[in-house]
Amino acid sequence: MSSVDLNADLGEGFGRWTLGDDDALLGIVTSANVACGFHAGDPSTMYRTCGAAVERSVAIGAQVGYRDLAGFGRRRIDYDLGELRDDLLYQIGALEAFCRVAGGRVGYVKPHGALYNTAAVEEGQAGAIVAAVRAYDAALPVLCQPGSVLARVAIEAGVTVVGEGFADRGYRADGTLMPRSLPGAVLHDPDEVVARAVRMAVEQVVETADGELVPTPVASICVHGDTPGAVGLASRVRAELAGTGLTVESFSRP
Amino acid sequence: MSSVDLNADLGEGFGRWTLGDDDALLGIVTSANVACGFHAGDPSTMYRTCGAAVERSVAIGAQVGYRDLAGFGRRRIDYDLGELRDDLLYQIGALEAFCRVAGGRVGYVKPHGALYNTAAVEEGQAGAIVAAVRAYDAALPVLCQPGSVLARVAIEAGVTVVGEGFADRGYRADGTLMPRSLPGAVLHDPDEVVARAVRMAVEQVVETADGELVPTPVASICVHGDTPGAVGLASRVRAELAGTGLTVESFSRP
Amino acid sequence: MSSVDLNADLGEGFGRWTLGDDDALLGIVTSANVACGFHAGDPSTMYRTCGAAVERSVAIGAQVGYRDLAGFGRRRIDYDLGELRDDLLYQIGALEAFCRVAGGRVGYVKPHGALYNTAAVEEGQAGAIVAAVRAYDAALPVLCQPGSVLARVAIEAGVTVVGEGFADRGYRADGTLMPRSLPGAVLHDPDEVVARAVRMAVEQVVETADGELVPTPVASICVHGDTPGAVGLASRVRAELAGTGLTVESFSRP
Amino acid sequence: MSSVDLNADLGEGFGRWTLGDDDALLGIVTSANVACGFHAGDPSTMYRTCGAAVERSVAIGAQVGYRDLAGFGRRRIDYDLGELRDDLLYQIGALEAFCRVAGGRVGYVKPHGALYNTAAVEEGQAGAIVAAVRAYDAALPVLCQPGSVLARVAIEAGVTVVGEGFADRGYRADGTLMPRSLPGAVLHDPDEVVARAVRMAVEQVVETADGELVPTPVASICVHGDTPGAVGLASRVRAELAGTGLTVESFSRP
Repeated sequence: MSSVDLNADLGEGFGRWTLGDDDALLGIVTSANVACGFHAGDPSTMYRTCGAAVERSVAIGAQVGYRDLAGFGRRRIDYDLGELRDDLLYQIGALEAFCRVAGGRVGYVKPHGALYNTAAVEEGQAGAIVAAVRAYDAALPVLCQPGSVLARVAIEAGVTVVGEGFADRGYRADGTLMPRSLPGAVLHDPDEVVARAVRMAVEQVVETADGELVPTPVASICVHGDTPGAVGLASRVRAELAGTGLTVESFSRP
Repeated sequence: MSSVDLNADLGEGFGRWTLGDDDALLGIVTSANVACGFHAGDPSTMYRTCGAAVERSVAIGAQVGYRDLAGFGRRRIDYDLGELRDDLLYQIGALEAFCRVAGGRVGYVKPHGALYNTAAVEEGQAGAIVAAVRAYDAALPVLCQPGSVLARVAIEAGVTVVGEGFADRGYRADGTLMPRSLPGAVLHDPDEVVARAVRMAVEQVVETADGELVPTPVASICVHGDTPGAVGLASRVRAELAGTGLTVESFSRP
Repeated sequence: MSSVDLNADLGEGFGRWTLGDDDALLGIVTSANVACGFHAGDPSTMYRTCGAAVERSVAIGAQVGYRDLAGFGRRRIDYDLGELRDDLLYQIGALEAFCRVAGGRVGYVKPHGALYNTAAVEEGQAGAIVAAVRAYDAALPVLCQPGSVLARVAIEAGVTVVGEGFADRGYRADGTLMPRSLPGAVLHDPDEVVARAVRMAVEQVVETADGELVPTPVASICVHGDTPGAVGLASRVRAELAGTGLTVESFSRP
Repeated sequence: MSSVDLNADLGEGFGRWTLGDDDALLGIVTSANVACGFHAGDPSTMYRTCGAAVERSVAIGAQVGYRDLAGFGRRRIDYDLGELRDDLLYQIGALEAFCRVAGGRVGYVKPHGALYNTAAVEEGQAGAIVAAVRAYDAALPVLCQPGSVLARVAIEAGVTVVGEGFADRGYRADGTLMPRSLPGAVLHDPDEVVARAVRMAVEQVVETADGELVPTPVASICVHGDTPGAVGLASRVRAELAGTGLTVESFSRP
């Protein structure tokens, strides 16, 4: 690894409602997962977010989700798989229009919320995501967790997988995240989060609660911007990563 | 005029609900105005409609509308004009994804319902449509009524206008349609509708209720498929147009 | 049993889109499960449906569903249970307004689609339905399948359960319905459907594919109106039930 | 006048998105205009808001709006008037369910955003609001601007009107608000806003930019909670009103 990407969810407001500090995050991350209107993100927010990302040379990915504004895409939905594929194609195409207007492109696809979690463990929805990507542009990478069902299904279908790690989450020995219901699932100590981010990026390992080292073949670290202190923490993560000699840049051409 | 286009609205179902006989219309028209999800048209319907249109060499246009499923896009909405432009860009991009998957392309843009009517008489919303088209692809033609404000604003902005005529609607002396509230606004006699379609296409004129001849510089005739007998009538219009020696083909590459 | 109810889903259009022959069904059934706007049913359809039901002395029930217009409430959704309870309360209240205007009342609650199926087997969503009913009006009965988890949870909470049977569906030995994916899950022979309806209502049993008799403690038979021939079949069911000497009337005061 | 009401918009979040400081406002106002899900306000937010309002003895009104989440109800929509009436009935009924569960009631109706502004000047939409109120409960008051078309139409129909004033807005000599586009339309000096609130409540007059005194027959003062300093200002308004000897209480039984 001579470079590492930092990604964050952006453009997650809707109409009158805003969420997170997109402007600050765009000064920190190298890849922006832009919400596409189904779980969050209205067209004008997409327009502005894509414009700002292109202006700041941040790569743009389609943060696709379930059709679920009321639940912010966090409610698992048992879609017909063809309908799920089509909902994702729709979102990717819509975002592409704003990328095109801004002089950019959709550089990758990242599922959101319950779709992310479901595709990590189920063949069906993982396959719907991969089918959408292949139908749209088989060269588009999917940003997801290494070792997940989605990663495997994508690789088997010839779709590039970019692994991402979560510096503020507890890991289990099998490389999956600890459920949020368990103690230690979310780490709050900034020093620890920064140290884990660096170790993931440089050594490609993370330590479990039991002190075991788990391999994390990640090319991107996910940071957040919607909680107090999150932007400051993301900024520190970037500075520390840069300090290790790694180039902080997107895996995708901005 | 050595050729004429026939256009119809297609893909106007939503989820469990269907509307019109798309399959029959695709055997008749040369241009399909495909609904893009805001006033009608879910992603899977768009997927199927674009696939069927490409298969049958029917050109595809983005039938863009207000965000108004409950009102089917027939309620005039006073949008902020930037937000309207963005809603239209979103729809065009979403449809492009399905065209791309089907091996086709978005060949033109036609506004729907209240947006069509509003843009025919107001600079603001007409400008928002033209702004969306120019931002997305300045070479895309707009299908609309000749002489409308939208047609003028598009031409002034260097956007191609394709004029369309309505064979089953009464015209006023200034070339605009009679409001539906007036007697004679909608023609029901099939022979008369067919004769008017032919005259519009061949002679580029239509007769008002007062017997006056009004110029109709139209390259496309709009037909409908959602009322009893509509498909049969559309079929007759096509046959009669073809019988005049005109080539019935789209103005847009399918 | 000296009486039996006939129920059907009504008011399942949305805006421009219609579904089923509500007018014909209102002349046949004694209880109308009126869609409440989340999976189907816009306010004006609710207004008209409640008015027509009251006029024809048909009891009105709240046919509550997931917030899922695109999927018609047929996609299982993993709701937070408090949010599900609140979505149901919202729908019941909305329907009550139209009942009130029409001079009627919400007489019962029946879950729709995937919510019906999920609550039949899961404590959580069953509990959310029962919590909504108890919070709103603990005297409201729930119309559901006898022997289901929902029926049990309701009874345990002191909520009245009205059992319903499906004359056109195959049953398993444990009293549950055969999944639609299996052969024999849906019966198409009108004579057989009518005979099963009568036997369910009079003898309170139904025959499985293996010829076994299963108890069906039902006070209501569900009929459909959205397939060809469905209205005629529902009409025959009603006539035959009446012919047995049973009074065909709702369990709920209209 | 021996008493005055303070009203504010509450419950205007949606799902993941929040807006304003509802908790603080509930400690200040005497009437809560609760959003009903069409322009803002999801069912669980309605549940919590109604519960908190009843607990704190704040009266609840239905803050009804257009079906327009993306535009927050601020885009004027040309509804069919019957459909508008039904959309309002739906919202009032939905809110009533949560009031009922909380041990309260819908005590009044206040239109939101573009519906408020449109009904202030147009007979049609004003009539739809009044039709909804009369159909639901003719004893429910409508909270709106004195002298508006809505006020007149309501009074003519026998519906009670409660006039409200805006202490932070500039008035014209005819008693209408200055459009926001004009300088002086919104007042920012807290001392001036407080003084105007007191004068409106006590003397029932407000001063125009030209120094003219305009009668304001208001029984309620509207305060806001969604801008910086708004809650503090609302709190000052309440304290000063109480200091004049007026009883600060709702016109509606909580």
